[in-house]
Amino acid sequence: MSKLKIAIVGCGYWGQNLIRNFADLADVEVFAVCDFNLNALARIKRRYPTVELRHDFQEILADPRIDAIVIATPVSTHYSFAKAALRSGKHVLVEKPLATSTQQVLDLMELADRKHLTLMVDHTFIYTGAVRQMKSIIDAGTIGKLLYLDSVRISLGLVQNDINVMWDLAPHDFSIMDYLCQEAPVAVSAVGTKHLGCAFENISYVTAHFSSSMIAHFHLNWLAPVKVRKTLIGGTKQMIVYDDMESTEKVRVYDKGITVSKDPQDRERLLTGYRNGDMTAPNLDTTEALRLMTREFVESITQNRLPLSDGFAGYRVVRLLEAAQQSMMSNGEPIELAHELDRQTALDSPVAVSA
Amino acid sequence: MSKLKIAIVGCGYWGQNLIRNFADLADVEVFAVCDFNLNALARIKRRYPTVELRHDFQEILADPRIDAIVIATPVSTHYSFAKAALRSGKHVLVEKPLATSTQQVLDLMELADRKHLTLMVDHTFIYTGAVRQMKSIIDAGTIGKLLYLDSVRISLGLVQNDINVMWDLAPHDFSIMDYLCQEAPVAVSAVGTKHLGCAFENISYVTAHFSSSMIAHFHLNWLAPVKVRKTLIGGTKQMIVYDDMESTEKVRVYDKGITVSKDPQDRERLLTGYRNGDMTAPNLDTTEALRLMTREFVESITQNRLPLSDGFAGYRVVRLLEAAQQSMMSNGEPIELAHELDRQTALDSPVAVSA
Amino acid sequence: MSKLKIAIVGCGYWGQNLIRNFADLADVEVFAVCDFNLNALARIKRRYPTVELRHDFQEILADPRIDAIVIATPVSTHYSFAKAALRSGKHVLVEKPLATSTQQVLDLMELADRKHLTLMVDHTFIYTGAVRQMKSIIDAGTIGKLLYLDSVRISLGLVQNDINVMWDLAPHDFSIMDYLCQEAPVAVSAVGTKHLGCAFENISYVTAHFSSSMIAHFHLNWLAPVKVRKTLIGGTKQMIVYDDMESTEKVRVYDKGITVSKDPQDRERLLTGYRNGDMTAPNLDTTEALRLMTREFVESITQNRLPLSDGFAGYRVVRLLEAAQQSMMSNGEPIELAHELDRQTALDSPVAVSA
Amino acid sequence: MSKLKIAIVGCGYWGQNLIRNFADLADVEVFAVCDFNLNALARIKRRYPTVELRHDFQEILADPRIDAIVIATPVSTHYSFAKAALRSGKHVLVEKPLATSTQQVLDLMELADRKHLTLMVDHTFIYTGAVRQMKSIIDAGTIGKLLYLDSVRISLGLVQNDINVMWDLAPHDFSIMDYLCQEAPVAVSAVGTKHLGCAFENISYVTAHFSSSMIAHFHLNWLAPVKVRKTLIGGTKQMIVYDDMESTEKVRVYDKGITVSKDPQDRERLLTGYRNGDMTAPNLDTTEALRLMTREFVESITQNRLPLSDGFAGYRVVRLLEAAQQSMMSNGEPIELAHELDRQTALDSPVAVSA
Repeated sequence: MSKLKIAIVGCGYWGQNLIRNFADLADVEVFAVCDFNLNALARIKRRYPTVELRHDFQEILADPRIDAIVIATPVSTHYSFAKAALRSGKHVLVEKPLATSTQQVLDLMELADRKHLTLMVDHTFIYTGAVRQMKSIIDAGTIGKLLYLDSVRISLGLVQNDINVMWDLAPHDFSIMDYLCQEAPVAVSAVGTKHLGCAFENISYVTAHFSSSMIAHFHLNWLAPVKVRKTLIGGTKQMIVYDDMESTEKVRVYDKGITVSKDPQDRERLLTGYRNGDMTAPNLDTTEALRLMTREFVESITQNRLPLSDGFAGYRVVRLLEAAQQSMMSNGEPIELAHELDRQTALDSPVAVSA
Repeated sequence: MSKLKIAIVGCGYWGQNLIRNFADLADVEVFAVCDFNLNALARIKRRYPTVELRHDFQEILADPRIDAIVIATPVSTHYSFAKAALRSGKHVLVEKPLATSTQQVLDLMELADRKHLTLMVDHTFIYTGAVRQMKSIIDAGTIGKLLYLDSVRISLGLVQNDINVMWDLAPHDFSIMDYLCQEAPVAVSAVGTKHLGCAFENISYVTAHFSSSMIAHFHLNWLAPVKVRKTLIGGTKQMIVYDDMESTEKVRVYDKGITVSKDPQDRERLLTGYRNGDMTAPNLDTTEALRLMTREFVESITQNRLPLSDGFAGYRVVRLLEAAQQSMMSNGEPIELAHELDRQTALDSPVAVSA
Repeated sequence: MSKLKIAIVGCGYWGQNLIRNFADLADVEVFAVCDFNLNALARIKRRYPTVELRHDFQEILADPRIDAIVIATPVSTHYSFAKAALRSGKHVLVEKPLATSTQQVLDLMELADRKHLTLMVDHTFIYTGAVRQMKSIIDAGTIGKLLYLDSVRISLGLVQNDINVMWDLAPHDFSIMDYLCQEAPVAVSAVGTKHLGCAFENISYVTAHFSSSMIAHFHLNWLAPVKVRKTLIGGTKQMIVYDDMESTEKVRVYDKGITVSKDPQDRERLLTGYRNGDMTAPNLDTTEALRLMTREFVESITQNRLPLSDGFAGYRVVRLLEAAQQSMMSNGEPIELAHELDRQTALDSPVAVSA
Repeated sequence: MSKLKIAIVGCGYWGQNLIRNFADLADVEVFAVCDFNLNALARIKRRYPTVELRHDFQEILADPRIDAIVIATPVSTHYSFAKAALRSGKHVLVEKPLATSTQQVLDLMELADRKHLTLMVDHTFIYTGAVRQMKSIIDAGTIGKLLYLDSVRISLGLVQNDINVMWDLAPHDFSIMDYLCQEAPVAVSAVGTKHLGCAFENISYVTAHFSSSMIAHFHLNWLAPVKVRKTLIGGTKQMIVYDDMESTEKVRVYDKGITVSKDPQDRERLLTGYRNGDMTAPNLDTTEALRLMTREFVESITQNRLPLSDGFAGYRVVRLLEAAQQSMMSNGEPIELAHELDRQTALDSPVAVSA
């Protein structure tokens, strides 16, 4: 079988990671790269002398030898690039977030479905050993019912020019939550602030509300002196601390909890008990997440199936971003989310426009 | 001069710390302790055989030998105990929070002023070496203008029976913010959730909004598997990480930041620069905070002056708690705070009731 | 039954801890304390008004009401004080190390045996939850055969006036090794150095050699800028990291290791495999070690049995200190230890002198 | 000017790092790579399609287009490969340690000098921002006189087939000590042990003795469950903790110390004072060490000068390894080092054999 020929659009930091990972797959040929920046193209050429260089995206679209296009460009361009790629009959992998509105995402999904093409979004973290381990712990039920998820993702970050800190960082956390939790939020609220003359928020706090007593909270910050990527997950039986800055032992499972029972002598009074058990840091698969993610893209094409992080996964994340953005602009007012959709219902919803 | 005779009401964990610290002051006599729990009293007697034991608060009030009363009882009792003490002509030190409403606090302040008695609240943290060091850094201006304060205070905590996690833990953080920041918040919003059948919220997120672009945020949680007490403070020139769980180096000052300037070629475009300088952990005074706090109480009495954490400091903290509680009950709606008051304006406000 | 009456000699930092713990035992009366320092005695009196104060040790010895004497004085005085106490018919608990030579220890053991009195040494660490947990892990065999023990105990420590850093700190580590390892070392070597005009070594490295391939190593340092108390224990199946500076999770068990097998194709070549499994931090009993240690002293008296850290345990530790000291003075030459003795053989050895 | 043409011999993990770094230098052409392993060569070809592949070292030697040879092969082959390269008129860069005996090193030095060729050893760590920062701190004198250096370099490491853990890991630490300390050791002692049927020691403790009271100690271990790379450096005025596992703040300077003075009242008694000042973590240059090291190799050739880590630096490190190995085989006996040589004296010493 001939190799899948791939073109990568956007040769920045992440684009280079994607090139490296696709280049290492046996059944893939990194056929072309495309960037407006000629220096960036030259740097790629030095490392990958056989790759063809393009600075006109139209040439990529028009080239019948190219099977699939990987889009690693600024967020504001995702939609138009992905739409053009699908229209040209190419499979598409898009960096997170998939687009800047649910309407755009539904549009892309509809188009991909119609043309029988793969549409995938790079929700990298759900392919990490740490998140996959947590998924298996939560699915096994040993953690009990989820009570909260608290995530902090802060650093002295690269201030982006086209989006605020939430659109930049929260897709990671929203996709992790979406992957791990069986329940979907019913409302989202958010606040944020702009500093130093920036046009976009550089600090944002987002809360996701659930119909149960579950709560999720996200702290996103480009102006922190230390890099923190930590998530707490509380269950009725166990609790997890996921610290992505640890070089090993990123996931720690605490057999700790509180039990509350009614005092039999007194109908009003609650008796609280504390349980302090062992902590276990399970051994994690250290396969690079991008390796698994790129392989999933290729396999979804060759096996003609939906990828794990398909357009609908991208939709669920953008839905949260969109609602949180709306809340941030409404002084933190909670924005209700429509009843959780399945894939088909989302596609049938009136917001999906034809291409 | 004769020693100041003190009675301590409430011999729980914190009450014992207060007894130990007052007992070590040279010009103070711990004259009596009062508790409903006879076992607690017996335990005190073993350690301090000369202290008089009382289980009736009225006896404390009626005893003319007692100069001052320290109230370390459940929060819901603070107001009535403090009011009775002031009415009996005793100076009063109350555990945080000073009372459960601003109206109660103003009432106590008015009464203390009228009777020329000291009314003080134990905002312990502002007496720590770490917070005092941060105060001097911020006041010196080397950190620049404050941009944000982010505080996390979580652990597998003692679930309280009369208050939620915010009323239990946030007084620490609110008093630290009140002490450190020259600007006062103009609005507060909060969300929270109850788990495990508890009557009160065991997780709460509070945001304080300022008229500048400053933002403050607080994460309070009784159900976390790990104990975290960490505050980030971002300034335009430097940033601080205050980690109270470190045994040493609790305060770290980062000479880091982002500078944003307009591109002279392009009026729209911003140029962002990152500054990465040294980190310094200043040596901290390790005097026990309670030692300084108890001494401040005694000196404010003997010197006939307002203590650092006077009734008005208690008012400012309760004002935030009250507004945050209201927001939490209104689905996170921001609650505006009246224009920042000075002490006298607060006392003159209509909510102050006569005793 | 009447309470056991105890006198504590030496009211320094550790003496005060001992007083507090004995005072909390129900069947014990802290009858008297003895110190040359009148200020120290006065401080004790303030906390424990009913305790009798002595500054003449002879009065303690002569007082028939006193059942047992606890010796928390400088190391160089342990032997003479303990000997006098035993001669006066008192049970004795001595701070670590029990004495400054094995000959002294054997002398005390012989005297205690002859007079049917308890002789115990305060090897505090073997009473901690962490060390007891490690003991049970090692005894259960899941860790496999022990390969090495590496211990670091350093800080900006109190430079002692009568002993070097090894005699000050190594008793902790030697008693832990003695308690945990089923095998006894056959030789000891050590180096050290003196700085800043001190009369005694302030840095010391000690190695214990075993007849198997097991090795133990100890780093002791009074001049380190950070406090480290960390022990690594490697077994053929699992490995342990014991970090006493952690507030929780002091003991971490790693299911990691290397397996080496002969290449079947090549008789010379070894194949190495790495095993990376989970890490578990077992929940530890947090009872204060001094509580268990003081209780063990009392119970060994009332039950008329040898305590866990009896004179012979003290002997085994002093034997290592003595040999390490000899090696340090001989340029690091390994000093062979006599074949491991049982209690009786040690007592029968020619070095045991009569009292 | 034409580019310097380089051949890299050995395409293992480190060889690939060297290829990547040389490939990024503007004035260098990675002309050829050589390995016995055809798979390794094929992997290089995929990344660097223009590089010529060789599996016969003789072809490298005979190729007049090659200016310099980089040797990243097993330690036991360093000498013969480097000697052959120098004889063929090529400049040579050798992985650490430069060779397996001082005699071999002197032989290579003599040969390189005679043929006016560069002989350099890759002591990577002295090119890191962390070590260069410590060098400038020590040279500036603010740390005072050095009292000790304590280094721990342990992990569940790759057990080597041709050398023990000391020859594998200690070259890093010995080269750091050699670079940082103005004083050279006068003797070395070492112990080690073999486990699991290995032919070589997998744990080793090395002590370097100085004519002053300075002491240096090294803990090297392939069987540790956690990865530690930590060095303590104590000076009379300040102390440094260098933790290479930290992602930032690798170097922390503590303004701490002990001062000892004679009691004027008592000629025998020492008064000890403790100084606790700030801790500072200086901002470090994050340039990759291999980038600076490879550039130094190229510049030493083009500028016709000795590189920083020249043959004599390699000699000083191998001298310590050789002595420590001898001590390890003599039960830890200290091995005296000849008076510290300058470069010329070393070359004139009788052990230097002609090529």
